[in-house]
Amino acid sequence: MDTSAHVARTAPGPLVEEVRLTPVLTADPPLLNAHGVHQPYAARLVIEVVTADGTTGLGETYGETAYLGPARALADALPGLAVTDLNGLDALAEEVCGTAAGAGDGTGDGAGEAGLGGGGLRGVRNADKLRLSVVSGFEVAFLDALGRSLGLPVHALLGGRVRDRVDYSAYLFYRWAAHPGGRGEADDWGDALDPAGIVAQARRFADTYGFRSFKLKGGVLPPDEEIAAIRALAREFPGRPLRLDPNGAWSVETSRRVERELRDVLEYLEDPALGTPAMAEVAATARLPLATNMCVTTVPELAPAFASGAVQIVLSDHHYWGGLRRTRELAAICRAFGVGLSMHSNTHLGISLAAMTHVAATVPDLAYACDTHYPWQTEDVLTRRHTFVDGAVAVSDAPGLGVELDRTALAALHARWRADDGTLRDRDDVAAMRAARPDWTAPEVPRW
Amino acid sequence: MDTSAHVARTAPGPLVEEVRLTPVLTADPPLLNAHGVHQPYAARLVIEVVTADGTTGLGETYGETAYLGPARALADALPGLAVTDLNGLDALAEEVCGTAAGAGDGTGDGAGEAGLGGGGLRGVRNADKLRLSVVSGFEVAFLDALGRSLGLPVHALLGGRVRDRVDYSAYLFYRWAAHPGGRGEADDWGDALDPAGIVAQARRFADTYGFRSFKLKGGVLPPDEEIAAIRALAREFPGRPLRLDPNGAWSVETSRRVERELRDVLEYLEDPALGTPAMAEVAATARLPLATNMCVTTVPELAPAFASGAVQIVLSDHHYWGGLRRTRELAAICRAFGVGLSMHSNTHLGISLAAMTHVAATVPDLAYACDTHYPWQTEDVLTRRHTFVDGAVAVSDAPGLGVELDRTALAALHARWRADDGTLRDRDDVAAMRAARPDWTAPEVPRW
Repeated sequence: MDTSAHVARTAPGPLVEEVRLTPVLTADPPLLNAHGVHQPYAARLVIEVVTADGTTGLGETYGETAYLGPARALADALPGLAVTDLNGLDALAEEVCGTAAGAGDGTGDGAGEAGLGGGGLRGVRNADKLRLSVVSGFEVAFLDALGRSLGLPVHALLGGRVRDRVDYSAYLFYRWAAHPGGRGEADDWGDALDPAGIVAQARRFADTYGFRSFKLKGGVLPPDEEIAAIRALAREFPGRPLRLDPNGAWSVETSRRVERELRDVLEYLEDPALGTPAMAEVAATARLPLATNMCVTTVPELAPAFASGAVQIVLSDHHYWGGLRRTRELAAICRAFGVGLSMHSNTHLGISLAAMTHVAATVPDLAYACDTHYPWQTEDVLTRRHTFVDGAVAVSDAPGLGVELDRTALAALHARWRADDGTLRDRDDVAAMRAARPDWTAPEVPRW
Repeated sequence: MDTSAHVARTAPGPLVEEVRLTPVLTADPPLLNAHGVHQPYAARLVIEVVTADGTTGLGETYGETAYLGPARALADALPGLAVTDLNGLDALAEEVCGTAAGAGDGTGDGAGEAGLGGGGLRGVRNADKLRLSVVSGFEVAFLDALGRSLGLPVHALLGGRVRDRVDYSAYLFYRWAAHPGGRGEADDWGDALDPAGIVAQARRFADTYGFRSFKLKGGVLPPDEEIAAIRALAREFPGRPLRLDPNGAWSVETSRRVERELRDVLEYLEDPALGTPAMAEVAATARLPLATNMCVTTVPELAPAFASGAVQIVLSDHHYWGGLRRTRELAAICRAFGVGLSMHSNTHLGISLAAMTHVAATVPDLAYACDTHYPWQTEDVLTRRHTFVDGAVAVSDAPGLGVELDRTALAALHARWRADDGTLRDRDDVAAMRAARPDWTAPEVPRW
């Protein structure tokens, strides 16, 4: 069997005629995490795939500089490929994206992960993952174009929705009222730096969007303060699912202590310690399930994590995993091994929220509300923002993703990207923190 | 998150209007295996799904009596469902198919598996697997109907083909010249009961169809005779991939001995011993990869088999696994754990060969030629039989599966099924053997 004989350019279906890539900077509030603070703007890449029949499909992925070269190489290779040919898209990406991203060690132990995208907050960094992250945006654009062309929603191309709304979780952050030096876009959220601030934020999220699950981004304050914040949330929202995610900032010992103290109120504990071996040590004594979007963000990390019992829930990010079909494959893998699945989020626009919603709608055993930063994003590139009702996004039955591009908004966010001198195009939460605390360096992990 | 909220009857896409189920008996030669001999006719179920837009999709699955009740229940529930709604099909099957099949123990240890379909040759028997086997035929019919309706081949609905032909293996059997008592349909193959007979059979397969891989169904003669047959094949076809499959008839010790003796000529050894624990013992000392379509035929059997290193290649049968999409999911699971994938076959018609070819065409890392019984089936329900060129079937780019139903042929095979008094509708290789050897009983395993 010839295992490499990709047959390009002859597959049936609408053919790609043109691909437009538009990097943008979108406003991001001063949200705090273990590494520092979000910059005033975050980079995303908007992908438009135009087919010979005049259909345009939309996709979105990470927009930092490292993604743009491979994305351009792939875009240039696409004309003539059928948008049905998602396997061909994968194969082409392997051919043309190269290994420009540099390679992490792929061990998932959290070592050597500094640099790209938030100082390791996104898990292992290697060329495969970068390529898959690029492919994901094109895969979504292919599915959107195909769905529009056929008159079918993306979920129908993935086997059909099993629910008509997808639940999301409120994503609570310690935050400042404004970015240092008054940079970025103002908002009226004020700061949140203690339990009362977090509860007030959660209340506003609940009242505005109806969220019924709450996740607190931790790793910012000493663990006892974050425990107090979770306790305050539990009092304010009794019985509601709560989660805490310190992004691996804790030692095994601290992780075990927090797990013991919060096991009566948390739904799950997310990435308390860094890397699969440490997570396995925590899991060994935990009663709470451990979730991750750090020690398992690539296929090779699955087997050791499952074998060691390190994670009970994988938080998929369809960008990391290479798209919506691969997210469904990840769901199948997790299902086969009795591991739960939910969804992770980084700062993103409405195209990716639509994509997340479509794929989430097709996974029967998605047992947890998905994460999304979307309510923090005041800007979008869509003609109509997504709305949350009772914390959920309705699954669209319109052709494709069911969203429309607002070219004026896109042009404005792209102009901001063009005007940037390069300091904001690449996420660097540590550098952003230095604007407030000049002596700030990336904290040693485990910090507590 | 509501994990059970299936939203039926509102999905977009062509709606099912009518479903036709036609059980048939198709001629089968007197092929020998560890349990006995094939009956003169084998039961298959042909499924036609007719949509409101007048499209008919074809599917095929096992046709024994146990499958017919659940298939009828599912068929009756389908009108109004969209053929895009494959997740809805799964959910409906869970609702209506029930547990009529009775339950095996699901442990994959090979215990308690007597009865359905060839005395355990098909692996574990339980209600989930029977339901999935039923669903698979409908899933293929849905995909065929959808593809025809959209003008897209089935492979394009699965992400697109990565090759334009799918390699199959010659499936060599010890056999008699004719069924006992002259039953069944005559053929001109003669008998094959020794190395010379097997080599002659392989030569004819190679000359007629161009097969370049050869699998011998073993477990029929004492191991040394089967070793001699493999050695004779290796001399006749030097360097060609060879496989031996005794259907679990050997002890661990015998399996290890055969593996040692044939490791220089076999591509892999298939199910030498019965059940995951025994396979793991064999694998522990083997240099050849072990393949299975017996100890792993369901999702729950994957994790223990992978953890114990019992199998290096899973031979998927899309019927067992619930269809073409689930076969792709199985491929993803295997890929994540470094396990190979190829395809198993039981006696089948051309609809299933088309389905196998479409899905195989979309699996990038399918590294082994697939099994098929098709050349042994002189009858089909298609207007045009599949052809093998250089041992491969060309992947069709025509809409749907790319095959057409021959209603006259279907009616004739169905008339044979109707005329049967019940003795042939359920596969029973042991009973068939008794026609020649009245004292034959199902051999104790391990036999050698």
